[in-house]
Amino acid sequence: MFQFIDDGTITSVNGFKAAGIHCGIKKRKKDLALIYSERSCNAAGTFTLNKVKAAPILISKKIIENKNKVKCILINSGNANACTGEQGHNDAIRVQEHLAAKLGLDPREVLISSTGVIGQPLPMETVLNGINKIYDIVSYDGGLDAAEAIMTTDLRIKSYALKVRLSVGTITIGGICKGSGMIMPNMATMLAFITTDAEIDQPVLQELLSDTVDQSFNKITVDGDTSTNDMVILLANGVSGININKHTYDYKLFAEALSAICEEMAKSIVVDGEGATKLIEVSVNNAKTLKDADKIAKSIANSPLVKTAFNGGDANWGRIISAAGKSGADFNPLKAEIYFNDLPIMMPNYRIVIDELKAAAILNLDQFSVSLDLNDGEFSTTWWTCDFSQEYVKINANYRT
Amino acid sequence: MFQFIDDGTITSVNGFKAAGIHCGIKKRKKDLALIYSERSCNAAGTFTLNKVKAAPILISKKIIENKNKVKCILINSGNANACTGEQGHNDAIRVQEHLAAKLGLDPREVLISSTGVIGQPLPMETVLNGINKIYDIVSYDGGLDAAEAIMTTDLRIKSYALKVRLSVGTITIGGICKGSGMIMPNMATMLAFITTDAEIDQPVLQELLSDTVDQSFNKITVDGDTSTNDMVILLANGVSGININKHTYDYKLFAEALSAICEEMAKSIVVDGEGATKLIEVSVNNAKTLKDADKIAKSIANSPLVKTAFNGGDANWGRIISAAGKSGADFNPLKAEIYFNDLPIMMPNYRIVIDELKAAAILNLDQFSVSLDLNDGEFSTTWWTCDFSQEYVKINANYRT
Repeated sequence: MFQFIDDGTITSVNGFKAAGIHCGIKKRKKDLALIYSERSCNAAGTFTLNKVKAAPILISKKIIENKNKVKCILINSGNANACTGEQGHNDAIRVQEHLAAKLGLDPREVLISSTGVIGQPLPMETVLNGINKIYDIVSYDGGLDAAEAIMTTDLRIKSYALKVRLSVGTITIGGICKGSGMIMPNMATMLAFITTDAEIDQPVLQELLSDTVDQSFNKITVDGDTSTNDMVILLANGVSGININKHTYDYKLFAEALSAICEEMAKSIVVDGEGATKLIEVSVNNAKTLKDADKIAKSIANSPLVKTAFNGGDANWGRIISAAGKSGADFNPLKAEIYFNDLPIMMPNYRIVIDELKAAAILNLDQFSVSLDLNDGEFSTTWWTCDFSQEYVKINANYRT
Repeated sequence: MFQFIDDGTITSVNGFKAAGIHCGIKKRKKDLALIYSERSCNAAGTFTLNKVKAAPILISKKIIENKNKVKCILINSGNANACTGEQGHNDAIRVQEHLAAKLGLDPREVLISSTGVIGQPLPMETVLNGINKIYDIVSYDGGLDAAEAIMTTDLRIKSYALKVRLSVGTITIGGICKGSGMIMPNMATMLAFITTDAEIDQPVLQELLSDTVDQSFNKITVDGDTSTNDMVILLANGVSGININKHTYDYKLFAEALSAICEEMAKSIVVDGEGATKLIEVSVNNAKTLKDADKIAKSIANSPLVKTAFNGGDANWGRIISAAGKSGADFNPLKAEIYFNDLPIMMPNYRIVIDELKAAAILNLDQFSVSLDLNDGEFSTTWWTCDFSQEYVKINANYRT
């Protein structure tokens, strides 16, 4: 009931404009993005759980918690405005107020977000000058420019949109995101901005977003780190005139579509992980509880030993079962089975049935799945991870300097 | 009150013999070690918490839990006998019984331990032949041979001993260990065997060892993984005739010496971590609780982003405070201070006072400390970690194949 749009983006959604420009925080690349809605939006958000939160996180989080209507989001890359103390807070407020004045808005209608180097003050003149330029060039086809302007060490623009056919008409959901090292406190990290022209009450929107983020962005891992600046925002401007209420079939369709676009965005972040060469789906099936399944999947997806083995194309099932074992989850290793795609690797009682040639062929694919069937219950989960390459170390050993 | 002995080892302790030979599990290197005590020993042990436990772990753990008196430990490297099911269990029993018969012992006096590739059956003929050779060549100067025979990807032999002057005389503690990738389920992982000629009741010995391991081996991390085969054993043969009782000053002296040798062994494992070029001491001071301090120290010591920055000599304080923030511990980042050795880097309210040249000089040392002072309580902890190099990825991407 939903369909991805070619070259889809946040401005594929009716009533949303955007822009992305170079204002001078970075040397040459685009570094300032604006997402703007003609109509006031209901807004939902999820934010980093890191104790160390960047100034824009604290400000935007408050707006979402107060259920304020929102008209726009300003995002800069190149500077995270994190660990910048009181000055950082004041700078963030000034940025927000400056844009609000330009657009004739209340500051509480303006969400802000930053990503980039931490611990350095925002270059205020540069940013304010950038706002003076960007505010009146937002356009109905500026989505991809915005997607480009939020990138840090990302190699690829991450932008999607899909049409969702509901009982009373069609709505659109668009999204852009950035990731790369997850996290690089230095560069900050995962941001995602999602737009829709559906009309959805704020509490329902928030619940939808929180649930969806849990099943998508919260199930990917590049290096197990969590940023000071992580943020996912969903804006619903209601321009379609189609209202989505809870406990309806349309709600279910919308949730599925939102889930699909978030999953796609999440996977695009993993694929573009620093130094990553492969996307690996880690499924843990038939666990005693969902918590056990997630603990095990996370432990496998985060294990440097598993990830380096994938990098080397080594069918190292021993590291997989051992990563499961150290997860703290409750399961019986003697009942466990391991598969690469559909190829059986290990059967119960550690019976190894691996066909090394076939296994090696799978591990050399750009994308494959690793499934651990615990035969111990009814709960299953899927995570996504990438391999761990020498390139990752190179990028991160030398990033700041 | 204690003093390290040059070239000290487990056989520096009165009444202990050892040997290390090549029996053929590995191509060329030593792969079988035996530690033997003339007198029956009280034995204490700590074992991996991984749900997936190798066969020898289960067998030796039971002996320790039953408080059996022990005469020897047989260790093979090159094969972990892990994930080998019922056959693995039977093989382990056969090894134990074969050695017991050769030495005229009850099998319950024989501890066994394995490290190496997992999921492959022990080459039984090779191991039994090895036992036929090793059992009668143990000698009072075989400690270093044994230390060599338990190595896997370790680059250096890890062996220590110290003399402890007590109120009524002098006793000796000796130890050998192996580590490297911690863990490589493929090669198994951290093993430590400690001998002493002090006389200590088993329950006291076990408590001492458990406490000491918590403050030493459990506070090091190379890659955050935990092996299927981890094991630390402490044998006390009482040959010195010096009895150590709880709540005495001698007990305190002994505990301090045991702690010193375990800390030294633990650090030697980190220094020799796969691809490691630096030893980093991570101290977290003045936390609200010890649990908070440990959570934060562990999070910093395990963060790939922190460890790659250390590899590159990058004074990336942002990654350190962010790793603390994501640890789940309770603290106020605004009160936190960061030091490299004695050099202040970050003061409260994220005030950055870094002298980049001095910081770079410290980070280029082979060994330095990173201290995070939370100014938020009275609990402190110290962990040890190494940097994360491209070499680590190389070793682990290509190990099994």
